[in-house]
Amino acid sequence: MKKIVLLGASGSIGLQTIDVCIHHKESFEIVGLSVGHNIEVLKDILTKVSVSYVCTAQHHKELIEEYPNINFFHGDEGLLQLVSLSYDVLVNALVGFVGLIPTLKAIELKKDIAIANKETLVVAGKFVNEAVKKHKVQLLPIDSEHSAIWQCLKGNDRKEISKLIITASGGSFRDKTREELKNVTVKEALNHPNWNMGAKITIDSATMMNKGFEVIEAHWLFDIPFEDIEVVMHPESIIHSMVQFKDYSVLAQLGLADMRLPIQYALTYPNRLEVYNSEALDLRKIGSLHFKEICFNRFPLLKLAYEVGKKQGTLPAVLNAANEEANALFLKGKIRFLDIEDLVMDACKDVWFKQDPNLEDILKADALAREYVRRKIEGLK
Amino acid sequence: MKKIVLLGASGSIGLQTIDVCIHHKESFEIVGLSVGHNIEVLKDILTKVSVSYVCTAQHHKELIEEYPNINFFHGDEGLLQLVSLSYDVLVNALVGFVGLIPTLKAIELKKDIAIANKETLVVAGKFVNEAVKKHKVQLLPIDSEHSAIWQCLKGNDRKEISKLIITASGGSFRDKTREELKNVTVKEALNHPNWNMGAKITIDSATMMNKGFEVIEAHWLFDIPFEDIEVVMHPESIIHSMVQFKDYSVLAQLGLADMRLPIQYALTYPNRLEVYNSEALDLRKIGSLHFKEICFNRFPLLKLAYEVGKKQGTLPAVLNAANEEANALFLKGKIRFLDIEDLVMDACKDVWFKQDPNLEDILKADALAREYVRRKIEGLK
Repeated sequence: MKKIVLLGASGSIGLQTIDVCIHHKESFEIVGLSVGHNIEVLKDILTKVSVSYVCTAQHHKELIEEYPNINFFHGDEGLLQLVSLSYDVLVNALVGFVGLIPTLKAIELKKDIAIANKETLVVAGKFVNEAVKKHKVQLLPIDSEHSAIWQCLKGNDRKEISKLIITASGGSFRDKTREELKNVTVKEALNHPNWNMGAKITIDSATMMNKGFEVIEAHWLFDIPFEDIEVVMHPESIIHSMVQFKDYSVLAQLGLADMRLPIQYALTYPNRLEVYNSEALDLRKIGSLHFKEICFNRFPLLKLAYEVGKKQGTLPAVLNAANEEANALFLKGKIRFLDIEDLVMDACKDVWFKQDPNLEDILKADALAREYVRRKIEGLK
Repeated sequence: MKKIVLLGASGSIGLQTIDVCIHHKESFEIVGLSVGHNIEVLKDILTKVSVSYVCTAQHHKELIEEYPNINFFHGDEGLLQLVSLSYDVLVNALVGFVGLIPTLKAIELKKDIAIANKETLVVAGKFVNEAVKKHKVQLLPIDSEHSAIWQCLKGNDRKEISKLIITASGGSFRDKTREELKNVTVKEALNHPNWNMGAKITIDSATMMNKGFEVIEAHWLFDIPFEDIEVVMHPESIIHSMVQFKDYSVLAQLGLADMRLPIQYALTYPNRLEVYNSEALDLRKIGSLHFKEICFNRFPLLKLAYEVGKKQGTLPAVLNAANEEANALFLKGKIRFLDIEDLVMDACKDVWFKQDPNLEDILKADALAREYVRRKIEGLK
């Protein structure tokens, strides 16, 4: 029995993690979970799983009265209390930078980390890797691309890798020119062709910032130089990613779009279990798979991610923070789609940079980038 | 340094094995090799590699005079002398049933077997597996499909396999109807769209007998029931085969058509080395991959292979022997393309059958099936 603490339970990955745990009660027990402000979804979750500890963003007196058997925590301090419980694996399904500090704390406490929260690795991959090494814990990828690479690498020597090949669906606007992007709406951007995901990551897919983050994430997870990480457009999202070895043999992991597979694999690794009510891939039904080159001019944030990843320092924190702010502003209808790119690119040019940051510098760069975007928007008005 | 004995040096796999060994002199040394009747190719080989032992089908006095430093063997007895030398791995690149006895002898002598000679596993997989287990040697697949599956399985528990998916190019006549097959020529049959291989296997690809043999071979190599081995048409031959696990995750091995990769992998396993002068796969250049269902009515020998594989006994030996004879008759222009199917199907119906054969029974069934085909042809004349 693996005991699990789940951060970000009300999001897409969080809910699917709960689904996996419910259908493998013999293997997994969720001892604690966190949600943000979505109390309705929390109540629904609590009809399905019995947990002893819950953290919410804010204090809710009525929850304490309604669930007398649950211990409630709240806020950032509550997340740290939650990750300090007795359990085996932290599933970090938070969205954004907020996942960093609880992750580092859990690693210190020698918990294995199943990580869907790519922003944590983007801004502080070096710190996470150092902590993972020091405290001898496992970092278990949940992102479908990284799970694919991880599955392809199993049993293989990482020194024999010649290239990682990350596939990209291209997101909601893959068939639009830059000219056509000028007046796209939030609703159009949220309509991803292959995956049903949360709002933030769906917008990040449309800008390919998400794919850029995945490149940086892959760099830290698998210790591969950016020169050897390639992104290939693959509209069907059937091949989730690939590894090319030094003999030019390529291994690929394939499947239908179902995030419960990588979630479950991170929890069952090195073994596998049936995925409840899941559908097998049948390539005869799919018929064909397509691949094409990705144009960096069409997707400048992907290009930027490579540059930022190579330059490192505080720059990834700026990239991520500016993107989080711009993404949220677009979702609120306050800026246009192409403004996201401009804001993120400008922030990476203008915000304070330090080459060898400590963790405080990362937090500072994050705060400065957010402030930069907000000021710029106020200036635009 | 791995010492190698190579059976079938003058064939396609044999010559490519020599190429691999020449370009990794630091890793491999060929101590002995066999050819059949192709003395010209043997002489060419001997300009490139220095070997101490050579076996030819027949005795050639002039070879002994021309190469005083080489010890020559000949015939079936010579093959057994060759496999009894001191070395590490036997590369069996023979074509047909002739590979069986030397393989069993080498296993007894505790040599690892890199096997491209699928007929050996088709007719006597059970005996080979028992010998491999008893003498604790490794059976290393060279066929591209089986190498693909083997690469996908590395590091994974075979109990977690739900299905093997073998890809099929469809051979030279994949786009022809059965009606159109009636008058095809040998030259057309030898024109394989994706692979440049020997004549026998190219004809076997056109009839899909080859794919049927591969299904039986996969059964024995990976201990998977026939119900869980699927064949999918994939005209580009880029995905060489796949494994579906119980969580419906699929791993695939991909690459351009270059048999040196699986040959070399069998020799370097569990490690990898660069393949000399090889080309990396670029899916962006390939553009698209296609998959479709295979119709058993269009390819009756594939259907037959499943039936024969399930029934076992002496039947696989009959299937193989009748096919070897019919294939050779077609290549000599003595029968038409569709006669191959009829002869093989009739032999499987009519020739003597025994359910629990010993090795002598296998040899007897092989001889009876060959006689059956020859008599039938004489009767037809």
